[in-house]
Amino acid sequence: MLHLFCRLRRAPEGIGHGIPHASVRANLERAVDGATAEGYTIVPIAILGHKADVCFMVVGDDVWHLRRFQSAVQDAGLDVVDSYVSLTEVSEYADGISDGMKRARLYPTLPIEGKTAWCFYPMTKRRDAVNNWYSLPFEERKEFMMQHGESGREFAERVTQLVTGSTGIDDWEWGVTLFARTPDDLKAVVYTMRFDEASTLYAEFGTFYTGVVGVLHDVLTAAGV
Amino acid sequence: MLHLFCRLRRAPEGIGHGIPHASVRANLERAVDGATAEGYTIVPIAILGHKADVCFMVVGDDVWHLRRFQSAVQDAGLDVVDSYVSLTEVSEYADGISDGMKRARLYPTLPIEGKTAWCFYPMTKRRDAVNNWYSLPFEERKEFMMQHGESGREFAERVTQLVTGSTGIDDWEWGVTLFARTPDDLKAVVYTMRFDEASTLYAEFGTFYTGVVGVLHDVLTAAGV
Amino acid sequence: MLHLFCRLRRAPEGIGHGIPHASVRANLERAVDGATAEGYTIVPIAILGHKADVCFMVVGDDVWHLRRFQSAVQDAGLDVVDSYVSLTEVSEYADGISDGMKRARLYPTLPIEGKTAWCFYPMTKRRDAVNNWYSLPFEERKEFMMQHGESGREFAERVTQLVTGSTGIDDWEWGVTLFARTPDDLKAVVYTMRFDEASTLYAEFGTFYTGVVGVLHDVLTAAGV
Amino acid sequence: MLHLFCRLRRAPEGIGHGIPHASVRANLERAVDGATAEGYTIVPIAILGHKADVCFMVVGDDVWHLRRFQSAVQDAGLDVVDSYVSLTEVSEYADGISDGMKRARLYPTLPIEGKTAWCFYPMTKRRDAVNNWYSLPFEERKEFMMQHGESGREFAERVTQLVTGSTGIDDWEWGVTLFARTPDDLKAVVYTMRFDEASTLYAEFGTFYTGVVGVLHDVLTAAGV
Amino acid sequence: MLHLFCRLRRAPEGIGHGIPHASVRANLERAVDGATAEGYTIVPIAILGHKADVCFMVVGDDVWHLRRFQSAVQDAGLDVVDSYVSLTEVSEYADGISDGMKRARLYPTLPIEGKTAWCFYPMTKRRDAVNNWYSLPFEERKEFMMQHGESGREFAERVTQLVTGSTGIDDWEWGVTLFARTPDDLKAVVYTMRFDEASTLYAEFGTFYTGVVGVLHDVLTAAGV
Repeated sequence: MLHLFCRLRRAPEGIGHGIPHASVRANLERAVDGATAEGYTIVPIAILGHKADVCFMVVGDDVWHLRRFQSAVQDAGLDVVDSYVSLTEVSEYADGISDGMKRARLYPTLPIEGKTAWCFYPMTKRRDAVNNWYSLPFEERKEFMMQHGESGREFAERVTQLVTGSTGIDDWEWGVTLFARTPDDLKAVVYTMRFDEASTLYAEFGTFYTGVVGVLHDVLTAAGV
Repeated sequence: MLHLFCRLRRAPEGIGHGIPHASVRANLERAVDGATAEGYTIVPIAILGHKADVCFMVVGDDVWHLRRFQSAVQDAGLDVVDSYVSLTEVSEYADGISDGMKRARLYPTLPIEGKTAWCFYPMTKRRDAVNNWYSLPFEERKEFMMQHGESGREFAERVTQLVTGSTGIDDWEWGVTLFARTPDDLKAVVYTMRFDEASTLYAEFGTFYTGVVGVLHDVLTAAGV
Repeated sequence: MLHLFCRLRRAPEGIGHGIPHASVRANLERAVDGATAEGYTIVPIAILGHKADVCFMVVGDDVWHLRRFQSAVQDAGLDVVDSYVSLTEVSEYADGISDGMKRARLYPTLPIEGKTAWCFYPMTKRRDAVNNWYSLPFEERKEFMMQHGESGREFAERVTQLVTGSTGIDDWEWGVTLFARTPDDLKAVVYTMRFDEASTLYAEFGTFYTGVVGVLHDVLTAAGV
Repeated sequence: MLHLFCRLRRAPEGIGHGIPHASVRANLERAVDGATAEGYTIVPIAILGHKADVCFMVVGDDVWHLRRFQSAVQDAGLDVVDSYVSLTEVSEYADGISDGMKRARLYPTLPIEGKTAWCFYPMTKRRDAVNNWYSLPFEERKEFMMQHGESGREFAERVTQLVTGSTGIDDWEWGVTLFARTPDDLKAVVYTMRFDEASTLYAEFGTFYTGVVGVLHDVLTAAGV
Repeated sequence: MLHLFCRLRRAPEGIGHGIPHASVRANLERAVDGATAEGYTIVPIAILGHKADVCFMVVGDDVWHLRRFQSAVQDAGLDVVDSYVSLTEVSEYADGISDGMKRARLYPTLPIEGKTAWCFYPMTKRRDAVNNWYSLPFEERKEFMMQHGESGREFAERVTQLVTGSTGIDDWEWGVTLFARTPDDLKAVVYTMRFDEASTLYAEFGTFYTGVVGVLHDVLTAAGV
């Protein structure tokens, strides 16, 4: 899975023949349609704030294809300013879950109907002199993760969570993508779960991105592309 | 609520046909007038120093609208170089306050008459091996916050404070926006409160922005837009 | 007080009609002359190394005016690449000093005759789990600062020090500007004072800038503007 | 050995005569062919995400030649946005290995047949107040490294590891380049080895790059060059 | 002494009339010849990797002259992307050395015949809660430094070391420039000395630069200028 955070490549004021929004958009539509036709899932998100204009979540199984989609986005006129490279996974602490749930995690169906408020953040488990996650025995880690899961499940109706893994392939160990009904739901679930010991004692967080999921046309229009 | 920190997009010297201040300004006026007409509050601030030329605080309830305002600012000729995405909130430690005060926090009336000195900074509560805010029981956190509130109230006439929350949606957990009569008031209140244990032991601070609130025309003129 | 660290805005090689040094310089002279005529003090410094080409220290009492000077510098063809926003102050630990000395700190006369070697660095007092300045009682902090002051006074003839405060309005809590006879004096005083416990145990330092103070024409010539 | 992480140098939209992909590619092919003819090994990798478009691993014994290859890549139209400079080495803890294995480490044969999934990360051994690798006696370090090696050897068929050293010549002390059958193998080996005490207690990691190894033509096509 | 790390200023592909290598080179030759004629020492180094194309070490006693040389380099078509500003010094722990050795440290003769492998890194002594160099008594610091010096002297024939000081004038406290016969020598000496307690317990290191010293023409050719 590839999260591509992109910004419209703009010319400095007063040079060139203006910002060719129309051709950028046509190129992006072609890239998304092409990848979708090949069975890839593309979720477009309009991002709030300076970090990016839009995000594309891309789900598929061939690295060459993922990279070609990225190149198409760049050629269309966007700069990829941040990204997150990860793999879907079934948590090692989730041995009791059903095959259906395993499938849902390995092959997620996105986006989530009615949950258009969106955020993403990467995280890593702490390895400092006092709180070192990787020094804990498996059973203790599992216990922490189960408490954490229970606290998250209280939000299950309002928020859908997707955790993907990236140890060895990105700077952070896991990425959390949340789909919720409203931005307040996003804030409520993350704030509440920060009091779980798995977070309080052992979580380091990266950059947080927030935005709104929509169809490509609406996302590009709102994001000024 | 969206804090957009912006810088005039300038062409390198000697290329293009100069910096088209006039059209940038006209575009910005149109964007601000449009958002205001739709019921959004826009507070323009001229920022001192290299971090930005101007800031727009944008208050409203529709994420699509907030994002469209951002795109209008970018299309007008500004680069959004930093931002803060947050939600107004009533603190969980403020259960005793009146409905009027709650409304004032959820739906703030901005800017503040006679308080044109302005600063903003984001912050996060510490989670290190010795001082971990999230490991403290609620009553202890409440006690810290009440002391902190009392120390702030001594400045109530000179400084108005707006705290908004962003756990899960921005890199920091809270943003503090201060409106004061003079820059000296801003420095006095933040310096004094740094000795409160809630700050001394548990606060991590991000980037500080300082400037002056004014009507759009004056802010853009001073900021060289 | 505003420290503006600036770099000449250069076009990429081979485009545009070269770097219009002459007009940049004329614009800067006009901006400096204008601000000086309004009673503002402007100290130009040629900076060594990649961090900046020139610095302008600007002293004055109206934030709108300070910001307009910054805009004039930017319009002249410089990029403001770093800055420090602060207020002159009389230290809370300096209650015994004369009214004359207080005035000298609040309204400094700059530059300093015969002291053209210059450096600037911002600093913050530590708040870590072991050494937390803000947890110390006032008398203990005062004692540390008096030792620190004594150690600095041995350099009084060779080095003039200006400390300005910025808690709440810039990322660091204080800024130290030194004017000395030679770069060796700058190094000697800062190295010596690093062994004072106020520094050894409690100081965190930001970026150090070094350069040479001169009249505007000489500074711009040396800095390639 | 030189890892060069590169991004296509793009003009802003609307200026210049488009992105001259064809000439960039021809120039790169010439540079790679030239270096290969001189006996240098060049491994091209298409990189996923914002950090780079392509990576070139360059192996050879003359620093002047390595630098000239880098200049050829830059002149061809790529910006070198990150890099890692290192030397092949036989670990001081590997005194028992055969001469053949020593040769394989000093003069690696790259790329690895059938292992096209690729990642790279630099690392440094910790020197903090509690866990200081360099304070440990040799025998203890050797013991840690042997455990670490054993845990890695379980992945020997699926993953080939190349560790090169850079103390004194790059910001990190070692660089790890992995060639695997699939991205899942990369994640599995790094995640598993993170529980080894050599990593858990003593490793600090830098930026992780992931991609896919291929012939130059395929890599450039996928990466949009 | 001024270390200037520079990169060729390149236009985006497809605009301008190409990269005017020839004129850049002619301008640089004029700048170096001019400074040399005035008695300044200029050592050009071709740098490997993304951090810079070339470095110029500049030794001389007038800050205005050093700055003018920097401006000439910038005007010639290079961007100064990093730098280190320092003063030659005789270590306070080296009271027993001869006058000849003192002179050699204060007025170094560069470059070093036959030692063309080159690296540079800045460093600072730790001031953390457990290992605080500046809290140690002078005799203890001297003892650490003498052990460190002895361990370095084993490499004296293969590596020449130049340590210059910058407390108060650059972000780091000292800069280490090494001239060696081969890159392996650079790695060997720094790796070995990392086990000295002066480094293990008390050293913080900055960015490492590596390259090869040569005459200006060869350095510029290799670095693509």
